[in-house]
Amino acid sequence: MGSNTPKCNVCLIGSGGVGTIGSVVLENSGRAHVTAVLRSKYKIVSEKGWDIESVDHGTLKGWKPSRIVATVSEAALPPSGTEAQHYDYVFVSTKQLPDSYSVAEMIRPVVTPGVTAIVLIQNGLDIELPIIEAFPKNTVISGVSVIGSRTVGENGIAHIGSERNIMGPHFHDGLDRETQIRQGTEFVAMYDSGGPGIVSLDLDMPKARWYKLLWNGTFNTLCALMKMDVGEVQSSKGRESLLVPMMRELVAIAKEDGVELPEAAIQKLAYGLPDDCPYRPSMLVDVEQGRLMEIEVILGNALKKAEKYGVSAPKCSTVYELLKMEQWRIQQDLSGVVKAKPSKVDGTSLF
Amino acid sequence: MGSNTPKCNVCLIGSGGVGTIGSVVLENSGRAHVTAVLRSKYKIVSEKGWDIESVDHGTLKGWKPSRIVATVSEAALPPSGTEAQHYDYVFVSTKQLPDSYSVAEMIRPVVTPGVTAIVLIQNGLDIELPIIEAFPKNTVISGVSVIGSRTVGENGIAHIGSERNIMGPHFHDGLDRETQIRQGTEFVAMYDSGGPGIVSLDLDMPKARWYKLLWNGTFNTLCALMKMDVGEVQSSKGRESLLVPMMRELVAIAKEDGVELPEAAIQKLAYGLPDDCPYRPSMLVDVEQGRLMEIEVILGNALKKAEKYGVSAPKCSTVYELLKMEQWRIQQDLSGVVKAKPSKVDGTSLF
Repeated sequence: MGSNTPKCNVCLIGSGGVGTIGSVVLENSGRAHVTAVLRSKYKIVSEKGWDIESVDHGTLKGWKPSRIVATVSEAALPPSGTEAQHYDYVFVSTKQLPDSYSVAEMIRPVVTPGVTAIVLIQNGLDIELPIIEAFPKNTVISGVSVIGSRTVGENGIAHIGSERNIMGPHFHDGLDRETQIRQGTEFVAMYDSGGPGIVSLDLDMPKARWYKLLWNGTFNTLCALMKMDVGEVQSSKGRESLLVPMMRELVAIAKEDGVELPEAAIQKLAYGLPDDCPYRPSMLVDVEQGRLMEIEVILGNALKKAEKYGVSAPKCSTVYELLKMEQWRIQQDLSGVVKAKPSKVDGTSLF
Repeated sequence: MGSNTPKCNVCLIGSGGVGTIGSVVLENSGRAHVTAVLRSKYKIVSEKGWDIESVDHGTLKGWKPSRIVATVSEAALPPSGTEAQHYDYVFVSTKQLPDSYSVAEMIRPVVTPGVTAIVLIQNGLDIELPIIEAFPKNTVISGVSVIGSRTVGENGIAHIGSERNIMGPHFHDGLDRETQIRQGTEFVAMYDSGGPGIVSLDLDMPKARWYKLLWNGTFNTLCALMKMDVGEVQSSKGRESLLVPMMRELVAIAKEDGVELPEAAIQKLAYGLPDDCPYRPSMLVDVEQGRLMEIEVILGNALKKAEKYGVSAPKCSTVYELLKMEQWRIQQDLSGVVKAKPSKVDGTSLF
């Protein structure tokens, strides 16, 4: 690609550990001009940039993407002195909390119907559907990312696990398949050229998402519920009593959903990590830090499918209901509810 | 009963909140001579006695039962200068942890075959069976106690919830029914005469135990698992999503076990406490204090029956498996296992 080839415009929504490294990768490719929307960190990062320690990209002090804005509305306006533009890609790496906010409404100002491809590098199942409903003529590129990266302090990023990213179009009938493949392929090629991470194009993203969900719906949820790391879940025999049975429930739902996951997938995902594995999955980190967990897209949507197809998934649904109790407590804490002085009780009247 | 009527001999095993108040009640009756087996607290209580603040019995400073011994073997010997004796009753109020120790073996030295009636004031289901197996010619008196009483400090008892105790023989074929009824009735009458608590004789103890288990198998287990008090389980909607469905599973198992529990029992037990009820059930207190929980007798035995009868109980069994993971962690802490420095992991190989 010659140096005169115009760069494409990317709007980044959600500049945390995944998104910020994504913006580094895209800028590194030399093919993208990234506008990052930073809400809480706008002031500090537009002044100082990001201080990044990355296993993939080394030490970057005061790193900034091409443009930093404070709101999505501002991102939709052209920079002063320039002409109106559109975004070729909107890269979304926020948390998926459909019970709290709508990603489709959040990104609407920066999506040009029929033009902008929307890239969802997020957890969960069926997260593409509300986007397709809101933008029925746009390509939706779905992405499953495995990356050990998080924000630290006011403007730091600690990236300790090399990136592995599987991306591809989530096909729908709103535009022709060739356009969806072309936009997906171009984005993946650009992303792949930007860094040492392993990036794959996948044309069966529902299957890739289901595969990831086998892990996220089990290790992630059990770790969060029990406040255990992966190794503790394994050592406590929770793997045999609950985790593998939950995987089998998910495999049964996936099958009715048109996705065949082989027994080998269960064996690899359930037994692929060492027994003293200290990994603390995202939902566990969320609950420890008092943040809402992505319960609905990780287990809720899978269980909606189970109900639709009449597949029994009692272990997954019990864990889901227990996690919703935990989510209630997090919401109580976030909303600053102060416990009233409780009434006295005499339980002997029950017996 | 005239003052010359000889007192009966009672051996108390398990002198915590329930057992110590039980010994106060029995001594108050004027009809019992209580020998209390105190293990960890032997020295301090034999010197200073118990300091008791009781809603039923007032303030008792330095209170002691008739005799205090350090071991069950010592309790089996006659006090020096006296003749050999037998115990009319062994009153057991230890925790029920069949995976850790056998109550039958623990009490064997103080049980005279064919003579001593064994009173089990403990949680759970089917706790009578190992006792009947070990002592097939002895009456077993089963008891369900609701009492807010616990040990405090080195020799204190705080008793804040008045006692409600339902007791009766757990009938078996090892001796004639009349003997079992007579021993049960005499014990209950003696206990009833010792204090203001509400004491009932019940000739259908399996039903009374199942009724209590509806509460213990649901509120007690969910509170322990979620580290929530009763009011929080209710406010988080856990009552509707899990607790009541778990009660219905238990009712279905009970029915196959020959015990009919009416829908009104569910309504009373699930909705009988106020929404801000601060009560922290025993298993929650156990997990908070790093003590083993009575999982096996509370849910394990009910689930064994479910399996035997082919009754589906997926919510109860999932909660049971999760609690076993929690119990594993408590056991790790109790055994002083030091976590080895974990190996490094690269989860990207899984995806």
